[in-house]
Amino acid sequence: MTYCVGLLLNEGLAMIADTRTNAGVDNVASFRKLHMFEQPGERVIALASSGNLSITQSVLSLLNEGMPSPDSDELETLHNVPTMFRAAQLVGRAVREIYRVDALSLEEHNMRFDVALLLGGQIKGRRLRLFMIYAAGNFIEATPDTPFLQIGETKYGKPILDRAVRYSTDLYDALKIGLISVDSTMRSNLAVGLPLDLMVLKRDAMRAELTFRVEAGDPYFEDLRNRWSEALRATHQAIPKPPYTTRKV
Amino acid sequence: MTYCVGLLLNEGLAMIADTRTNAGVDNVASFRKLHMFEQPGERVIALASSGNLSITQSVLSLLNEGMPSPDSDELETLHNVPTMFRAAQLVGRAVREIYRVDALSLEEHNMRFDVALLLGGQIKGRRLRLFMIYAAGNFIEATPDTPFLQIGETKYGKPILDRAVRYSTDLYDALKIGLISVDSTMRSNLAVGLPLDLMVLKRDAMRAELTFRVEAGDPYFEDLRNRWSEALRATHQAIPKPPYTTRKV
Repeated sequence: MTYCVGLLLNEGLAMIADTRTNAGVDNVASFRKLHMFEQPGERVIALASSGNLSITQSVLSLLNEGMPSPDSDELETLHNVPTMFRAAQLVGRAVREIYRVDALSLEEHNMRFDVALLLGGQIKGRRLRLFMIYAAGNFIEATPDTPFLQIGETKYGKPILDRAVRYSTDLYDALKIGLISVDSTMRSNLAVGLPLDLMVLKRDAMRAELTFRVEAGDPYFEDLRNRWSEALRATHQAIPKPPYTTRKV
Repeated sequence: MTYCVGLLLNEGLAMIADTRTNAGVDNVASFRKLHMFEQPGERVIALASSGNLSITQSVLSLLNEGMPSPDSDELETLHNVPTMFRAAQLVGRAVREIYRVDALSLEEHNMRFDVALLLGGQIKGRRLRLFMIYAAGNFIEATPDTPFLQIGETKYGKPILDRAVRYSTDLYDALKIGLISVDSTMRSNLAVGLPLDLMVLKRDAMRAELTFRVEAGDPYFEDLRNRWSEALRATHQAIPKPPYTTRKV
């Protein structure tokens, strides 16, 4: 499994992805799931993937090789699509192409065509955008009302995002809340694990301000996990016990 | 959807269930999902249900009518089974009987045979136990290593239980943590909602110490929700922002 979150805020974009993959609990490995397509000054696009690793890797390979453009003879890649919307369409087409090639055989082995991707970034002169692309190749987009999107094992880490992240949230505060969300997920689900990859892109900066890998033992992340745990403990201990008594009928 | 949690601790048993059912978002209703089978001084058994409402209600009806006993001519019910293990087997048999009657027709309408139950309680002279019964009629049991079981929409509320509930946790503290877990679930998933039913059974007491319905506007639950929200906010605000900088290669 996997957990990736993208946060599209007034100030910019932050994305976090874990690196754990597993085919059963006896086959666990580490693969990068956050991929950067960056031409500083021109475009910064980040793609995070979840689902069947063979599918996500094939989609990536196809995106790197390029796909026929719907309106020119050139191959279209994330390095030359003119807009983020076209980028999302391109990723959707790549997903549909892998579906066309692989889905029937996967089905014969009772495997679901399982893939979801987060695509975030900005192309010079255009808006900063964040999309989630589904297995059917269709996609939705984050908006100020719902400024974050998640893929993979999303539920454990959703409550803190629901509570704490707003469009106006400071970008690095949001990154921090995203890390808390990942921590909650890792504690409850072994299929999500360190290291984490993260990126921060300020709006209109046209170059990633931060790309970083959080390794096991990272002092800041350890400290964040400990502070969060201790504060939760202190908080629930400070809440009085339920005063309820059975109502006699 | 539904969220129910059972907590089997050194001191006793606590169970919480929400009451919301929905068939799509345009058909939302309130049904009790926590059912008590109590003969004070003799036995206290609580059954919480999740899944397709027609299935869970049919299972309940069958349990109330009684099922043929495997080793006597009497009908077996939760009021006369001799042990909690036999009670879990009885519930499993009821689930299998409804499966036999309904599953094929449900499948013809592309509906999954979706049901899970929590069965907790104590029969005089026997141990306090907590079981989770699956749609196949098989079941698992809570132990001191894993003192809580959840059914329904379980993931949103699992992180706080993972962090805070141990077998040695005070029973009413655990009830409180369970309520926090339900709160997290309700905030992230509309299919779980108030009122909540809860029960507390002290080990060897042979009568429920507490049965209570938390209605919308309940002052304690409102206060718990507010305190928890405010403390989470204060906590993540107190954690410093990530100090990460891009490593230049």
